Amino acid sequence: MSLSRVLDRIDADLPASLERLFAVLRLKSISADPAFKDDVRRAGEAFVAALAEMGFEASLRETPMHPVVVAHWTGAVENPDKHVLFYGHYDVQPVDPLNLWSADPFDPKIEERDGVKVITGRGSADDKGQVVTFLEAMRALLAEDGRLPVKVTVLLEGEEESGSPSLEPFLKANAAELSHDMALVCDTDMWARGRPAITTSLRGLVGEAVTISCADRDLHSGSFGGPAWNPIRLLAKILASLHDDTGRVTLPGFYDGVDETPADVVASWDALGRDAESFLRPVGLKTPAGEAGRSILEQIWARPTCEFNGIVGGYTADGFKTVLPAKASAKVSFRLVGHQDPAKIRAAFQARVREMLPPDATVEFHPHGGSPGFSMPFDSPWLASARDALTEEWGVEALLIGAGGSIPVGDAFARLLNMPTLFVGFGLGDDRIHSPNEKYDLESFHKGTRSWARILKKLA
Amino acid sequence: MSLSRVLDRIDADLPASLERLFAVLRLKSISADPAFKDDVRRAGEAFVAALAEMGFEASLRETPMHPVVVAHWTGAVENPDKHVLFYGHYDVQPVDPLNLWSADPFDPKIEERDGVKVITGRGSADDKGQVVTFLEAMRALLAEDGRLPVKVTVLLEGEEESGSPSLEPFLKANAAELSHDMALVCDTDMWARGRPAITTSLRGLVGEAVTISCADRDLHSGSFGGPAWNPIRLLAKILASLHDDTGRVTLPGFYDGVDETPADVVASWDALGRDAESFLRPVGLKTPAGEAGRSILEQIWARPTCEFNGIVGGYTADGFKTVLPAKASAKVSFRLVGHQDPAKIRAAFQARVREMLPPDATVEFHPHGGSPGFSMPFDSPWLASARDALTEEWGVEALLIGAGGSIPVGDAFARLLNMPTLFVGFGLGDDRIHSPNEKYDLESFHKGTRSWARILKKLA
Repeated sequence: MSLSRVLDRIDADLPASLERLFAVLRLKSISADPAFKDDVRRAGEAFVAALAEMGFEASLRETPMHPVVVAHWTGAVENPDKHVLFYGHYDVQPVDPLNLWSADPFDPKIEERDGVKVITGRGSADDKGQVVTFLEAMRALLAEDGRLPVKVTVLLEGEEESGSPSLEPFLKANAAELSHDMALVCDTDMWARGRPAITTSLRGLVGEAVTISCADRDLHSGSFGGPAWNPIRLLAKILASLHDDTGRVTLPGFYDGVDETPADVVASWDALGRDAESFLRPVGLKTPAGEAGRSILEQIWARPTCEFNGIVGGYTADGFKTVLPAKASAKVSFRLVGHQDPAKIRAAFQARVREMLPPDATVEFHPHGGSPGFSMPFDSPWLASARDALTEEWGVEALLIGAGGSIPVGDAFARLLNMPTLFVGFGLGDDRIHSPNEKYDLESFHKGTRSWARILKKLA
Repeated sequence: MSLSRVLDRIDADLPASLERLFAVLRLKSISADPAFKDDVRRAGEAFVAALAEMGFEASLRETPMHPVVVAHWTGAVENPDKHVLFYGHYDVQPVDPLNLWSADPFDPKIEERDGVKVITGRGSADDKGQVVTFLEAMRALLAEDGRLPVKVTVLLEGEEESGSPSLEPFLKANAAELSHDMALVCDTDMWARGRPAITTSLRGLVGEAVTISCADRDLHSGSFGGPAWNPIRLLAKILASLHDDTGRVTLPGFYDGVDETPADVVASWDALGRDAESFLRPVGLKTPAGEAGRSILEQIWARPTCEFNGIVGGYTADGFKTVLPAKASAKVSFRLVGHQDPAKIRAAFQARVREMLPPDATVEFHPHGGSPGFSMPFDSPWLASARDALTEEWGVEALLIGAGGSIPVGDAFARLLNMPTLFVGFGLGDDRIHSPNEKYDLESFHKGTRSWARILKKLA
């Protein structure tokens, strides 16, 4: 069958694939440092050339900062009804301090670390190595089949390590060209060495900075303490009202759109052993704070929260001042999941604040964020295909995991291109991305390439 | 009878009394400005001389900053079983900005303002004018009776407007010499023009700065929001637990030692019309915040409070950071009345905090203050005497009022000399103390002097 030929070719071509990866790893595409502006462009050009050589219509598209690589496959396709957008980035983090590197960060090598073969160098894991897994998978598919399983557009940005200032304008300006059935992103980690994972949910975010004002000036707590409202007292009551004793958020309708995670998925998370000991102990904690009856991973990956990110009011320096302050402020944010509506939650929060204020306290709100959570439906056929492919390649069931925060590119694809994202990556927690001595496991590269070939075939 | 002769003499001697007052008002005893150090001493010397001339054993006693006037009456006394300590201060506030004064602040005059005869000049009301009412009353008593009604020691400090740094050490070092039955302080206001008042209660203060720590570092609210404890949430819950819905403080035993104010006193306060409109409107508020069913004056003068003077945690600058902070702090203070025990209340607060913390949150406390409230028993014969005397002089019932804050000297007398204080003063809210164009009503000086003569007679 064709898949086994494709996989065999990937195995046979590994030395050549590595040589092609090393060629782009040698390019110093440090997007944050203007001194490397030309190197960034050269890396973009190298990816354009590689994609063009494979038969893509590839071009470097200008932005105010670093160019974007866009490539469309216009050749033969097994299932032309499906069209994916592959996203990655070709820029890298700075390499300072250079003296902490054991070798030149831009002279990649294969070496053995702790008994594991790794590819060394800046960008080996974040993100050139991961991007090349996808490109080499397509190269093998084309070599064996002469066509791709589905239609593919490739989008590689050169500013990811600089906060992607040009990405959203670029997506908006080219929405029709880039919006397809599904985005595939290869910039995440596996659960652990040998254990593949798909990130199927991200939490959204709604934030409100709230300032409560009472008297028109700071008052003396001797002269006015008692009759005069204290905005810290009001704020504390409001914040304290937002969670019940089981850790649930008390805003009316808060859990509308929060789906229960299927029992088998929860069970697969429970089996990972990420308990309070292993999760909280590294930051000095022991007792979980979140919703009673939910595991830590479920809380982070699949449950919404209300958090207080900052609070200030009155006298806060050393010593004591018996002031009764005029104002007190807090920054409150909600992490959202599923189909929770950011606008409704913002409104429910504002209503709660207003209803708890006495008539002559006033409130000001300053909004922050407002992105919904994202979750791939657990019954999505795309998800099932990718999961099966990963499971077959790695010989162990691929995990469906979540991300507690948002991943900006996933949020941008959802918001601007109305397109879901499948996050599949082969990084590991010990890859030292953003640090000296970055590496990417050779197995991640090799089996990552094989994984993408399997996934693309399954998607067809 | 002897009292009427004394009062007649006060009336007849008013021009001479004023001349003696003017002589001390001309001395520039600005304690805060080192340039006036010698002027401060000269003012102290003038009071020593005046007391010596009246027959007191008077001396100027050195301190690290400005000297203290101490004078003992060792002559004849009507009732030698009673001994009062009269306290006042001979230093004054600075006079800047000088251009806002309509006349030289150290060239006192009698002038008419808004149809009222006033004594002008820095210190006329705060506190030289008030001190001299007491001295002139004693002068008239001695002139007519040849003796004082009770034993009198006079203590005049020269640092009150600079925070009295030497007073407590001086009181401690001379406790036996200065501790008597009752302190008389003439440094407070009447309720209103023509309406005398005695301040019979002061609120004490217990403060605690509390810092709650959870994780050992700031966390990302996406990665940890849910399972990790948020110290702002814990702090808000604790603060919100301290008041019930009626505004009462919920600490166990908090109201132990809080006596109900007699109904007739509450009624006399209610009759003053100090409602929310007149009390809160000037600072931009309308609805009272304190204990339900208690008038504003009762709340301020006779009821304890729990206030939040400051709070801080997490990200507090402009914009937003979705941090889950490691620490949050608040400054909490309690105003105390009656016989509330500061140590017990501090312990009850600390216990509340500890019992509301999960096992791995830690708390640090930093104490502030710790003074009990002070209240003259409403059935004290001293109080009755002074009240009757004032009522007779002014032709209207003298009010028994409270002070919402503490008056440091009253606290020091209670703490260091174990001596209660009777606060009787003849200042008015429009005296412009600490401001340009300070004045003291001529009536306050004249009837104030007569009031002290009556009070001293009654005390005998």
